[in-house]
Amino acid sequence: MSSPEPIAVVGVSGYTGFELAKLLLRHPAGSAATFFMRDTQGAHCLSELFPQLRGTNGAPVRRLSIENILASGAKTAFLATPHEASAELAPQLLEAGVKVIDLSGAFRFRDAAVFQSWYKLPAPHAAWLDSAVYGLPEFYSTELKTAQLVANPGCYATCVILAVRPLVDAGLLESNSTVVADCKSGATGAGKELRRDLHFSELDENFKAYNLFSHRHTPEIVEQTGLAESQLTFTTHLLPIARGILSTIYATFSEPQTPEAIEAVYRRTYAGRPMVRIWKADTLPEIQHVAHTNFADIGFALDPTGRKLIAVSCLDNLGKGAAGQAVQNFNHLLKLEENTGLQ
Amino acid sequence: MSSPEPIAVVGVSGYTGFELAKLLLRHPAGSAATFFMRDTQGAHCLSELFPQLRGTNGAPVRRLSIENILASGAKTAFLATPHEASAELAPQLLEAGVKVIDLSGAFRFRDAAVFQSWYKLPAPHAAWLDSAVYGLPEFYSTELKTAQLVANPGCYATCVILAVRPLVDAGLLESNSTVVADCKSGATGAGKELRRDLHFSELDENFKAYNLFSHRHTPEIVEQTGLAESQLTFTTHLLPIARGILSTIYATFSEPQTPEAIEAVYRRTYAGRPMVRIWKADTLPEIQHVAHTNFADIGFALDPTGRKLIAVSCLDNLGKGAAGQAVQNFNHLLKLEENTGLQ
Amino acid sequence: MSSPEPIAVVGVSGYTGFELAKLLLRHPAGSAATFFMRDTQGAHCLSELFPQLRGTNGAPVRRLSIENILASGAKTAFLATPHEASAELAPQLLEAGVKVIDLSGAFRFRDAAVFQSWYKLPAPHAAWLDSAVYGLPEFYSTELKTAQLVANPGCYATCVILAVRPLVDAGLLESNSTVVADCKSGATGAGKELRRDLHFSELDENFKAYNLFSHRHTPEIVEQTGLAESQLTFTTHLLPIARGILSTIYATFSEPQTPEAIEAVYRRTYAGRPMVRIWKADTLPEIQHVAHTNFADIGFALDPTGRKLIAVSCLDNLGKGAAGQAVQNFNHLLKLEENTGLQ
Amino acid sequence: MSSPEPIAVVGVSGYTGFELAKLLLRHPAGSAATFFMRDTQGAHCLSELFPQLRGTNGAPVRRLSIENILASGAKTAFLATPHEASAELAPQLLEAGVKVIDLSGAFRFRDAAVFQSWYKLPAPHAAWLDSAVYGLPEFYSTELKTAQLVANPGCYATCVILAVRPLVDAGLLESNSTVVADCKSGATGAGKELRRDLHFSELDENFKAYNLFSHRHTPEIVEQTGLAESQLTFTTHLLPIARGILSTIYATFSEPQTPEAIEAVYRRTYAGRPMVRIWKADTLPEIQHVAHTNFADIGFALDPTGRKLIAVSCLDNLGKGAAGQAVQNFNHLLKLEENTGLQ
Repeated sequence: MSSPEPIAVVGVSGYTGFELAKLLLRHPAGSAATFFMRDTQGAHCLSELFPQLRGTNGAPVRRLSIENILASGAKTAFLATPHEASAELAPQLLEAGVKVIDLSGAFRFRDAAVFQSWYKLPAPHAAWLDSAVYGLPEFYSTELKTAQLVANPGCYATCVILAVRPLVDAGLLESNSTVVADCKSGATGAGKELRRDLHFSELDENFKAYNLFSHRHTPEIVEQTGLAESQLTFTTHLLPIARGILSTIYATFSEPQTPEAIEAVYRRTYAGRPMVRIWKADTLPEIQHVAHTNFADIGFALDPTGRKLIAVSCLDNLGKGAAGQAVQNFNHLLKLEENTGLQ
Repeated sequence: MSSPEPIAVVGVSGYTGFELAKLLLRHPAGSAATFFMRDTQGAHCLSELFPQLRGTNGAPVRRLSIENILASGAKTAFLATPHEASAELAPQLLEAGVKVIDLSGAFRFRDAAVFQSWYKLPAPHAAWLDSAVYGLPEFYSTELKTAQLVANPGCYATCVILAVRPLVDAGLLESNSTVVADCKSGATGAGKELRRDLHFSELDENFKAYNLFSHRHTPEIVEQTGLAESQLTFTTHLLPIARGILSTIYATFSEPQTPEAIEAVYRRTYAGRPMVRIWKADTLPEIQHVAHTNFADIGFALDPTGRKLIAVSCLDNLGKGAAGQAVQNFNHLLKLEENTGLQ
Repeated sequence: MSSPEPIAVVGVSGYTGFELAKLLLRHPAGSAATFFMRDTQGAHCLSELFPQLRGTNGAPVRRLSIENILASGAKTAFLATPHEASAELAPQLLEAGVKVIDLSGAFRFRDAAVFQSWYKLPAPHAAWLDSAVYGLPEFYSTELKTAQLVANPGCYATCVILAVRPLVDAGLLESNSTVVADCKSGATGAGKELRRDLHFSELDENFKAYNLFSHRHTPEIVEQTGLAESQLTFTTHLLPIARGILSTIYATFSEPQTPEAIEAVYRRTYAGRPMVRIWKADTLPEIQHVAHTNFADIGFALDPTGRKLIAVSCLDNLGKGAAGQAVQNFNHLLKLEENTGLQ
Repeated sequence: MSSPEPIAVVGVSGYTGFELAKLLLRHPAGSAATFFMRDTQGAHCLSELFPQLRGTNGAPVRRLSIENILASGAKTAFLATPHEASAELAPQLLEAGVKVIDLSGAFRFRDAAVFQSWYKLPAPHAAWLDSAVYGLPEFYSTELKTAQLVANPGCYATCVILAVRPLVDAGLLESNSTVVADCKSGATGAGKELRRDLHFSELDENFKAYNLFSHRHTPEIVEQTGLAESQLTFTTHLLPIARGILSTIYATFSEPQTPEAIEAVYRRTYAGRPMVRIWKADTLPEIQHVAHTNFADIGFALDPTGRKLIAVSCLDNLGKGAAGQAVQNFNHLLKLEENTGLQ
């Protein structure tokens, strides 16, 4: 890339925004990035705000406002902002001709009612919801080519969908059977805002389940896998680690399957997809295999009858679960190799 | 207790044996304990071997041999030894009139074939298997009163059985439905022997599933819950913490249930049982609530249809999952209060 | 103890207060304890507020007020309250004849100016400062016998004083030489209040120094060791663990010493003191040896010249560093064995 | 770089070798790398051995032998091998005209006696010791330009030397005063070999000092700072984290200094050196600022007299402390920008 187009990265104070900043600073298009945040604390570049970035090239920081973003000349904007802020910023940017990759939940659903009911917030205008492309490039690479608005998936949702959708698409699941997705996430997935259960002395040496039958990523998984809501039991847990999600997924097949057949289903689905790695039957990925990467790894085992499957899917919640996937989507918008800047 | 009967604690070099030693040193019967281990390294009391115990009362250590144990005059022996060692030691002690609380898997099954098939070891003589009482005092307190041989349950098994058996006993489960028990354990549950995946730099910030469809605690859970083997999917994971197990359990009811009804089932089962604590519907125990205790805590939630249950069961794998439960069983043998020395 | 005197435990919402509650619930005098806190949330006993305590005996909770404390008939009050609150409550309790064991910094200094200058708060009346006994029972057991007001030491201060004072008292240090105390503490020592650097994702896998040349425990160490302020360099660090302090202490002797001589100095100082354990020369205590105990462990090594010493002192910041030591002081007030309820 | 010269990376099974492999795979010269290890387990490329690397470009693996290395046509060889292996391999490679960057301790000392005495191993031939350049590029960039053999420094040594040497060179230290370097390292610094104190359940929630007055990095620090051995007290501790070293360094100046003066000394020393970052007086780097980077960060504070300094130096033991620094040295050999492939 001789001279990359200007881009805007909006909201870099949280863990996702910061990860996005780090990824883009190593990306060929990153030299044309301007970073926006609510409170710049008088800083002019990211390295003044994040000691980790000192000594890297000066990445300009500006106060977050629609005017400032537009003034930057950005052709594409990443929004690592809260749902409400994204719902407000994205339409204004889109109307000004700026492409948007939104990392919040605001544009992930076709149906405004779904968003309102799960997020307890007013939904963006239906036209925007309609136009948004769900940013899971393994399934929407065609749509991404011409997308104006990309709704970057949730971290848990990505992890579960990648393992479940191929099984649904292949018609393997017993009709009306329930898929259980028992998911465990590191603490950065819960955000940077101070919270009692994220206080070090509370989470250290602890582990807990939370949001039973009520996690907001549920409707995404339902919509994107094609399962009925009644067919999905999705549970989330908090791990005493910083990064990584591992989902243990239980499914029942209508007919007995062989490990070879299941492996083939996964391999076929992700053929030519560099960021999803399929493990051989009876070998299992662990969080250490994907932490600090943009890979999603999937392994599985079958019971002796061949009708019960346990799949293990894992990824880095800040990588393929958020910022890395946003960059992957960005690469599609720019017609770059999918894994540019992600290795 | 004016003058406690002599007891023997066999195998104190592992995590379970050491926890047992610490518990017994605080127990009224502990002053009459002699500790046995393969290699005493010339030490005469535990505090020479474990710096943590320095300054506590001298707990005598002897070299592990059947002669030494018998010579100690012990009326009861705890065996925190490997399956093979327990299978060999227990019969000799029992024949000499010593009661045995065995923490290995050697005597947990009625059916010798089950042990042989899952443990790949010769099973003890059928007469001993028949006479052994499964040491889950919440269900076997009557049998424990006259037991000569107690088979202390597995840590995962305890955690799962306590949450599942009341549901089975109450006839709530949909016939032929599968119960999924997704279990996560701290590293002491995997033992003290050096192993690549337990090396600090490998487990730190990591999380993984292991032994899919093949964990040795499976047949215990099957036998003690009354589920058919085909109705149980039991999965284990390794947490980057030292102590604690949390099991997330998925079950389907034949009829819709209310939270009140389920809570009542659990409360009824464990009425008068001080070591199992039932949480109100929609509140969930965490590992921090049970670590370093002998409690097992159970919470749950129902889906809106009332037909799907998620139960969360947790305990300390070294407490209620092993050494603490052994002491609880010992209290039953001695007709002491069940929680003596366990608070 | 047939019928223990009533006691009050004031401030149980923080980590120290909660640890104190747990210790006292196991202490023979604990059955007569009433617990006080600012906001009881409508609870009547501790087990309603702390799930960990469910199933233990009901420990009554009352709203914190001087009237309520006095109404409880307490003969002794533990104050696990902030410096300001302690400075206000203690005099009122003392005037009403209630003995006070204060865990804050308010009464640790003879000189009001020292407190004011380091804590930026008005000091309590000089008469109270004069009457307070510094609650390090290894050095003040005589004074504790008749104490009305005990100033429980700081956690770091206890750890450093126990290792350094015997060397000063024995006249071993080179005159004008500097003692360096490089101290590392777990996160509970930094309290329960939410703070950016105590957010799990920030402290996990991190380690940092803080408060260089300015930690508030400095003047305690100076006063209690007899070192001049210019002779002490005291540094604190935050460890990614919950509990424990380890201090690495560097001192220079005026004359060459042998390991035996140094060990003898320590052993002589702590002869008959059950809660301080001296390690043999060239063996070193670790945090795991003292976590969840009331022990302070001291080990050391000498350089080949015998003139340079490194001592390693460690304890549990919530045990011997705070709540455990408060109970130890309480035992002295009651003329009980020093380690009652602490093993 | 149009077509990079072949390189050999020898010993990739340990943490340092694996980190080196990951760095080189992202380095412009990495496409010409062949990897060598004792036991290739039949694998032909790294990604077969390390699941983390699956999906990255095939990096060829060969069995470690001098013949195989020479046959690869390598112009430069990295040796991430044990001291003994390096001592044996390096001379053979050098004689064949292959440049060597050795990460062991074998070539770090001019004086063979020093190596023998601290490492208890026969030293390499004096001619090789003489010719070796100590691979701390901030001080030896000139020598590196023509080096045939680079002795990559120890992790602790790098961390301490970078903070201490500028003070010595500036003549600031009080004569005969002792510099105390109290250093804390993550567990990867202790290697991948299984060891009791590195077993997860032992190190988790623990912290300890080790090798008092006897750590092998002592003579490197002495030689490279110019301090007399009697002037250095160097202590090492094991942190319950995977990566990172933080050194707290205590020094005494002969004359009072201002923070500005000290900051200037450091800035002057490292002007134009991209991998060392100096923090403003009274601000301190933490391990999180350098983990997963090749930066060394240095901060400090002065006491009110201006004669006592505490410096805090930190780096990633696998980055600037080992593999990253090796790549930095390699960049010098190749006349590339010093930070090529390290950002």
